[in-house]
Amino acid sequence: MIYLFTGNGKGKTTAAIGTGIRAVGAGLSVLMVQFMKVKELSSEYRVLEKLERFDVVSFGREGFYLPEEELEKNPQLKEKGFKPFSRIDYQLAEEGIEYVKNAVLNEKYNLYILDELCVALYYGLLNENSVKKMLTDSGKDFDFILTGRYAPQWLIDISDLVTEMKDIKHPLNKGMKAKKGLDF
Amino acid sequence: MIYLFTGNGKGKTTAAIGTGIRAVGAGLSVLMVQFMKVKELSSEYRVLEKLERFDVVSFGREGFYLPEEELEKNPQLKEKGFKPFSRIDYQLAEEGIEYVKNAVLNEKYNLYILDELCVALYYGLLNENSVKKMLTDSGKDFDFILTGRYAPQWLIDISDLVTEMKDIKHPLNKGMKAKKGLDF
Repeated sequence: MIYLFTGNGKGKTTAAIGTGIRAVGAGLSVLMVQFMKVKELSSEYRVLEKLERFDVVSFGREGFYLPEEELEKNPQLKEKGFKPFSRIDYQLAEEGIEYVKNAVLNEKYNLYILDELCVALYYGLLNENSVKKMLTDSGKDFDFILTGRYAPQWLIDISDLVTEMKDIKHPLNKGMKAKKGLDF
Repeated sequence: MIYLFTGNGKGKTTAAIGTGIRAVGAGLSVLMVQFMKVKELSSEYRVLEKLERFDVVSFGREGFYLPEEELEKNPQLKEKGFKPFSRIDYQLAEEGIEYVKNAVLNEKYNLYILDELCVALYYGLLNENSVKKMLTDSGKDFDFILTGRYAPQWLIDISDLVTEMKDIKHPLNKGMKAKKGLDF
């Protein structure tokens, strides 16, 4: 089965992690592959790395990066510290997909969490056809959880379960800062 | 801060658990109080019970219970195995709130997850004023995460962050069974 957690609200990655915890508790093994993130920068990694059967691998680098065109369209993003993608970002994302393909091929896990996959697709870091092929060619003895805002329609179409995490109210809109332990 | 995860889609409890894992990783301590659930029946409990600083207490009993009026209105629910609430269900829910109040009073945790609180309120197992008082009288040195569908407007109003988990696509709608390790 393919589960998809998308939308602009809080709770996508944490719902994937919570489901991963549930899977481990049921005796299953989990691989979480993170795109555009550095696992060591998240608080949850300190707990997850100690769990048996919950592996985390991240394919991002420190800092905030977006496509050059996005930054040209929204110059205020540059002021906020965003920098343009460079070759390494595309390479990292592609390595992430290769990592998953290889694990799937060797039937290493029961549940594959592809965190921020939708964002990596949206910003063109990943090739649509290669991701689609991996998700649909795979056998059915294991499950995928995909997360990230901006899920494309084709991803919704091939998913079995889709939840939209919809932002109804958010303190960051009121200028409050993200809080360690809750938000990252 | 009060975080609220509501809506009819999957991911509310798992997002709360994932955020709890994040909090533990950041060195905080977490209490999860579950209403209308038995913790031992969930796969995730086998992992959570082994974590330091993540306590889980549940105030429900095995089986599926709803208010008598709901069952009268929807007789097919009885055929599905739902039984009417009895005195014990009200007592258990109230004990759950007392347990939280006591822990809050003794400043025992940094994060309090009240799982299925909205459902317990919706079905009248809990007194609205008593819950409201507990949530708003409390100091600001700790955070709440509330989950469950049917969040009342007053709960949305007093929450700082609200995400609606919206069901876009769900395999159970197509008659597929819930899967151990992913759904419970």
